[in-house]
Amino acid sequence: MSAENKMDDNGVSRRQIMIGAGAMAAGAAVAHFGGLLTAAQAKGGSTETWPWPYVKLDPATTAQIAYEEWYRVFCGAAVINSVFAQLREKVGEPYKSFPADAFVFLEGGQVGWGTVCGSPLGANIVANCIIGPRIAGDTAGHQITDEIMQWYSEAAMPVFMPKNPKITTELVKTTSNSPLCHISVGKWMKAANKPIGSAERKDRCARVAASTAFHLVELLNDWKDGKYVAKATHAPVKDFGITSQMNCMECHGSNIPTPPLAKK
Amino acid sequence: MSAENKMDDNGVSRRQIMIGAGAMAAGAAVAHFGGLLTAAQAKGGSTETWPWPYVKLDPATTAQIAYEEWYRVFCGAAVINSVFAQLREKVGEPYKSFPADAFVFLEGGQVGWGTVCGSPLGANIVANCIIGPRIAGDTAGHQITDEIMQWYSEAAMPVFMPKNPKITTELVKTTSNSPLCHISVGKWMKAANKPIGSAERKDRCARVAASTAFHLVELLNDWKDGKYVAKATHAPVKDFGITSQMNCMECHGSNIPTPPLAKK
Repeated sequence: MSAENKMDDNGVSRRQIMIGAGAMAAGAAVAHFGGLLTAAQAKGGSTETWPWPYVKLDPATTAQIAYEEWYRVFCGAAVINSVFAQLREKVGEPYKSFPADAFVFLEGGQVGWGTVCGSPLGANIVANCIIGPRIAGDTAGHQITDEIMQWYSEAAMPVFMPKNPKITTELVKTTSNSPLCHISVGKWMKAANKPIGSAERKDRCARVAASTAFHLVELLNDWKDGKYVAKATHAPVKDFGITSQMNCMECHGSNIPTPPLAKK
Repeated sequence: MSAENKMDDNGVSRRQIMIGAGAMAAGAAVAHFGGLLTAAQAKGGSTETWPWPYVKLDPATTAQIAYEEWYRVFCGAAVINSVFAQLREKVGEPYKSFPADAFVFLEGGQVGWGTVCGSPLGANIVANCIIGPRIAGDTAGHQITDEIMQWYSEAAMPVFMPKNPKITTELVKTTSNSPLCHISVGKWMKAANKPIGSAERKDRCARVAASTAFHLVELLNDWKDGKYVAKATHAPVKDFGITSQMNCMECHGSNIPTPPLAKK
């Protein structure tokens, strides 16, 4: 969604209004429990200053790293490392201290549960670590997250063709219309007629990680140049009254429930 | 799932077999692209040694912090900070360098997309940062992730009742049968007949974060004491041939597709 779509007239995002006046009470929130922690201590460690230093990266180089890394750490950690490994070398801290390999568990939509694909989640972690959360002032990380989710859902995947791929034949491309691993992988498996344990499915997922890393770096480079413009159009809470994808019928069929709505 | 369920006869997990012989080739995977990075550089920064130092925490104290933090940073970052804020004080690094507030974007299943709830995802980030990824040798982080996802799906939420709650009345409890925000929040909204912007829905989600933080610390304390036993029973790739939840019919109805399966 554009920044305009996301903002109410008073400049406070609709989401902020909806999920809490508490956001306004920010700093004081954790000062309640007996002096155990000061608000500053609870609010973050030494790297909680944004943005992190970023130097523009080459999208194709980054994608190739993600492709190779998939075979070591799988989708989520592969995307994180594709960017942070370069920045560890070019910048140093705080990238050196980020435990990217801990995110292996994003594989399979979190240890096989088929929730959000690790590739967009890894990309979103990178964007929000570098740019910071919307509560810190710059909403570009939030907007890039929204955009990565929508782009992933709408792209004919895999987009990126690596050098020296493990599978040398062309792979079927599918559009998931969802950021969920289960749906993304399932639609591809059906179109390709390949089981989840096949070398083709693995290489497809490695290329999806690469494709996502490529697009992430395009967006980060635009942001670094001060020319990032938010392009996502999906505003679920505003449009549907609930957190959601955009295509209700795909799971609900014609029997789409209406959530309880605020009185006008 | 138990360790027995997850392991094939040869002691290699079925998942490892299925998602890649590449895992075996680990260290060499990123050494291919022209000397840009050594494998060691791509593999991680200074905190990529596990486990991180952990001291046992009080579950109720942790849950209360998560509850309060929800109103500042929302579900995912609230759960992360509920544990890491205490460990920043009790231990110091590497917790001080972890950018917990960057994970505000986990709100609403990632900026409102309704994918995995930020509370279990935040818990999984904590467990895997402390214990490390399965590729580093200890599979407890992977197993706790599986268990958190299943526990979250099966619990009557919210479990934890905070001190000084913003909503002083009892809240309806619902069981999501899913780790997805859309489904978890949607079932609660329907049962409570409250819109997403209501103070009750916000406090419900704050208590869900608190409940998840409570259970996470119970599991981490068991792990620290050397008595953690994996209890999750959901083995989607093994049982269904695809990454997934356990309740196919809830989205698919009676028309459950069969994924392409490996030849026996």
